[in-house]
Amino acid sequence: MTSTTAAGWLETHRERLDGALEAIRSRGYYSAYPESPSPRVYGENAAADGKAAFEAHRGTTYPVQTPGANGTVTTEQSPYGVPLDVQYPRTTESSLDELLDAARRGMTDWRNAGVDGRVGVTLEILDRLHKRIFELANAVQHTSGQAFVMAFQAGGAHALDRALEAIAYASEEMNRYPTTAVWEKPAKGDSIRLQKNFTVVGRGVALVIGCNTFPTWNSWPGLFASLVTGNAVIVKPHPLAVLPLALTVEVCREVLAEAGFDPNLVTLAAERPGDGLAKPLALRPEVKIIDFTGGSEFGQWLEQNATQAEVFTEKAGVNAVIIDSTDSFKALCNNLAFTLSLYSGQMCTTTQNLFVPADGIETDEGHKSFDEVGAGIANSIGKLLGDDARAVELLGGIVNPGVITRLELAPEYGDVVLESRAIKHPAYEDAVVRTPLLVAIDAKDEEVYGQECFGPVSFLVRTAGTAESIDLFRQTVDEGGAMTAGVYSTDEQTLEQVRDAALDVGVALSENLTGQVFVNQSAAFSDFHGTGANPAANATYTDGAYVASRFRVIQSRRHVA
Amino acid sequence: MTSTTAAGWLETHRERLDGALEAIRSRGYYSAYPESPSPRVYGENAAADGKAAFEAHRGTTYPVQTPGANGTVTTEQSPYGVPLDVQYPRTTESSLDELLDAARRGMTDWRNAGVDGRVGVTLEILDRLHKRIFELANAVQHTSGQAFVMAFQAGGAHALDRALEAIAYASEEMNRYPTTAVWEKPAKGDSIRLQKNFTVVGRGVALVIGCNTFPTWNSWPGLFASLVTGNAVIVKPHPLAVLPLALTVEVCREVLAEAGFDPNLVTLAAERPGDGLAKPLALRPEVKIIDFTGGSEFGQWLEQNATQAEVFTEKAGVNAVIIDSTDSFKALCNNLAFTLSLYSGQMCTTTQNLFVPADGIETDEGHKSFDEVGAGIANSIGKLLGDDARAVELLGGIVNPGVITRLELAPEYGDVVLESRAIKHPAYEDAVVRTPLLVAIDAKDEEVYGQECFGPVSFLVRTAGTAESIDLFRQTVDEGGAMTAGVYSTDEQTLEQVRDAALDVGVALSENLTGQVFVNQSAAFSDFHGTGANPAANATYTDGAYVASRFRVIQSRRHVA
Repeated sequence: MTSTTAAGWLETHRERLDGALEAIRSRGYYSAYPESPSPRVYGENAAADGKAAFEAHRGTTYPVQTPGANGTVTTEQSPYGVPLDVQYPRTTESSLDELLDAARRGMTDWRNAGVDGRVGVTLEILDRLHKRIFELANAVQHTSGQAFVMAFQAGGAHALDRALEAIAYASEEMNRYPTTAVWEKPAKGDSIRLQKNFTVVGRGVALVIGCNTFPTWNSWPGLFASLVTGNAVIVKPHPLAVLPLALTVEVCREVLAEAGFDPNLVTLAAERPGDGLAKPLALRPEVKIIDFTGGSEFGQWLEQNATQAEVFTEKAGVNAVIIDSTDSFKALCNNLAFTLSLYSGQMCTTTQNLFVPADGIETDEGHKSFDEVGAGIANSIGKLLGDDARAVELLGGIVNPGVITRLELAPEYGDVVLESRAIKHPAYEDAVVRTPLLVAIDAKDEEVYGQECFGPVSFLVRTAGTAESIDLFRQTVDEGGAMTAGVYSTDEQTLEQVRDAALDVGVALSENLTGQVFVNQSAAFSDFHGTGANPAANATYTDGAYVASRFRVIQSRRHVA
Repeated sequence: MTSTTAAGWLETHRERLDGALEAIRSRGYYSAYPESPSPRVYGENAAADGKAAFEAHRGTTYPVQTPGANGTVTTEQSPYGVPLDVQYPRTTESSLDELLDAARRGMTDWRNAGVDGRVGVTLEILDRLHKRIFELANAVQHTSGQAFVMAFQAGGAHALDRALEAIAYASEEMNRYPTTAVWEKPAKGDSIRLQKNFTVVGRGVALVIGCNTFPTWNSWPGLFASLVTGNAVIVKPHPLAVLPLALTVEVCREVLAEAGFDPNLVTLAAERPGDGLAKPLALRPEVKIIDFTGGSEFGQWLEQNATQAEVFTEKAGVNAVIIDSTDSFKALCNNLAFTLSLYSGQMCTTTQNLFVPADGIETDEGHKSFDEVGAGIANSIGKLLGDDARAVELLGGIVNPGVITRLELAPEYGDVVLESRAIKHPAYEDAVVRTPLLVAIDAKDEEVYGQECFGPVSFLVRTAGTAESIDLFRQTVDEGGAMTAGVYSTDEQTLEQVRDAALDVGVALSENLTGQVFVNQSAAFSDFHGTGANPAANATYTDGAYVASRFRVIQSRRHVA
């Protein structure tokens, strides 16, 4: 039953997998899950049904079992002010023995499912998550504060694409090794023949530590990479963003059980804020893989202390754009305005530092002074967010009060080019919505812009010229890391210099983006998210290194005639 | 010039690379470097010329430059008693700034050489090392104590195969990513098109820490995996086995310089014993990759402390063979006798624990009691090593005095089944040669056999039956790790149980070896050496995980029409 079910699922979803495998080789465009929430794509009732399914969770105990749990926790606060009041099983330090025992119990069966069986199961999980994409989008919206369409795309369709990408890489990686081989060494007289078997074996228990802003997009790659390679997975969500991962775990358990596997291969470990569950969990000897998205301090703690595990971290950085010159000033301003506004700049990929020469830049509209560059971007942001009802659909809500604190301090760092303003959300009166703040600052103030100021705050850094811009770019990224970088220049030699700098400090570079692609966005199957080559992240979505160490190959051999 | 030379080398050696790539996919038999030192293969003068080249090094200063070095060191002691007196540049903690600066200086050019350029250069290095295989074999013999033919094979031909295997894996891994791609997303009106570039970038400086017993075989996979993926490599040899790695570094530098690259991309960091250079080197922030072969204590220290680096360790284990039954008792005894005798059991893969039921086993010669099993193996060892002149060609010399200390203590642990005897080497009167010691011990004495007793010491562990043998196998490998495991049984169900146990504890299993393949030997391209799944080693030669995290892929993107 077990293997039949899983094998059937692999066949059902093979075309999707093959498309993904082809795409990660060519790195051309591919998407398996439509990103438009339009009724023409998903059907007339999908949106309403999904919203109703989300609403039905409010005020209830979430139907997911966690071994060893003690009582429940209710920890979420919607940035839109909507009471969620969902209760989840509470995991504490004293639950861990039982939880880890339960997690490991199903691993032998899961190993014996083989590569195809596990790939089939995980692809089916993605398919079922896709069927609940509107419910998921509502859950992501009301925990992260993302506007609905963004929650649908980044938290739903694109997250599914990133999960599929991780499964594709892991599948390709596991299939590098044959399951059997005959080794025949020429020798005097008869040759020597051995029959060999090779088995993919998971490392143990994998821990996924979720974040507040992208609970699915940032957790799914690690979750599915670990699961498909034969590990059990414990998901510890951020206390403010549990629902999207509770739903994820529920679907994983449902599909695993249906195929005859132990549902405790995937478990939810929700905690009360302040319980500090992540540390003791991360140090358990059974935990062999950790995926973390969040602050630099805890990420570094994991890298330095959880040495029994493979640790994959995405932390924080100081993303930069170098502005040298342009043949399309308006498009430059509009493109950056969108980047700074989307989700109120609360993306790990949002540009923080815009390096602009004090003397200004050459453009298709003639020379623009430093102040005119700032005014141009500010003006584009103003137009983009001029209508409150439309603005909230781009900005979303502020994810937590820490962001507001930083935003309120930031005007003191320099000269305010564009003030942040509070917007009243037409649908959610308690929603906290803010527009981006743009502050001009001198190159010498590196202690300010050299650190991440997470939220809708960006700095227009006044440099002596593009040469200094490049130097500061190197310096800040080398020390503070970066998830993204951009450059605007009409000069090939300058572009070449910035490319070299980006290779040296290990960050992906977007050049002269003036259309519908933005420096803060990466496309699954083609763009790497993060690089693993600078302090912002020690891994990337997704490459071979992201999957290869999540399993081992164990062989046996014997003589054959 | 640079790229032309390297590209030419890739063409020259492409067939060799393609053979390796095909072999790692099929895991069938492959070898690129003949393992027989016969004059029919290598020519009439090769042996004499190689020996002369080795002799010429004695008493001289080795011609290799190390940036920052202060004076020289002379640290080697041949296990054959032959004075070497080779002087190497001495690296100390105060040399490290200069050394690391020099190591990094050539990295941009090396990155710009591209995948093909670096593969070409490393394949040429292997080819030049192959041309010096007899010189290398002498150097390995007189530092490790291996007998000449073994030094030629394990330290020469097989080490070259393992190095080629690492290059093949790294080449395949880097070539998973296209260098350029066009990404075209369908959109209303015109589609969105981006041109993308992907560049493989090394992580930084790689450190290779060599061992005394297999200076080339254990160092080359990491060295070449790091070099070909764009890193600079510092080689820190064991003070008792410098010459084979000095020769390696010399050849690397010669080939790099010839192709126009900075020779300091590969450097030798020799130290005086007690200088403790490895720790400060391993903790330098520039060091991003570490390959280590040696004791468990320092290996664990590296894993736990050098958290800025990817750390690949091969440490120690308690290798086991479960003896349940056999249809070929003589062949079993002969096969194990060879394993225990080869290089006096000083291999990380030599069997230490032989689990045998107290009631004895069923064989083709009828029932054999526990004592008869011991006597059978002892008898085979006696025959194999009966003639001193032939025995020394199998045993080689004892690598260092620590081995003798352990050997002298071991008879006290139980009942001696076979005494170790000292053999006088007919050619080297000061050589220290010992035959294997076999000690019968009770299952309860796990504190003895549960730890590695490195050298010619094996334990015949008296168990209540095969079920207990399997339990003890699980327990000892789970706690102490193992590089190898074996089983002898005529019962399919027992074999299945042991296979499951081996998968659970993560060790490769050899079943019923009775011919010319031995549990302590692994064949490049087909057998993994170590698994990375138990405490004996956190990595394997070679799989995707061994190479994938040694580099990152950095992209850039821009609009195209």
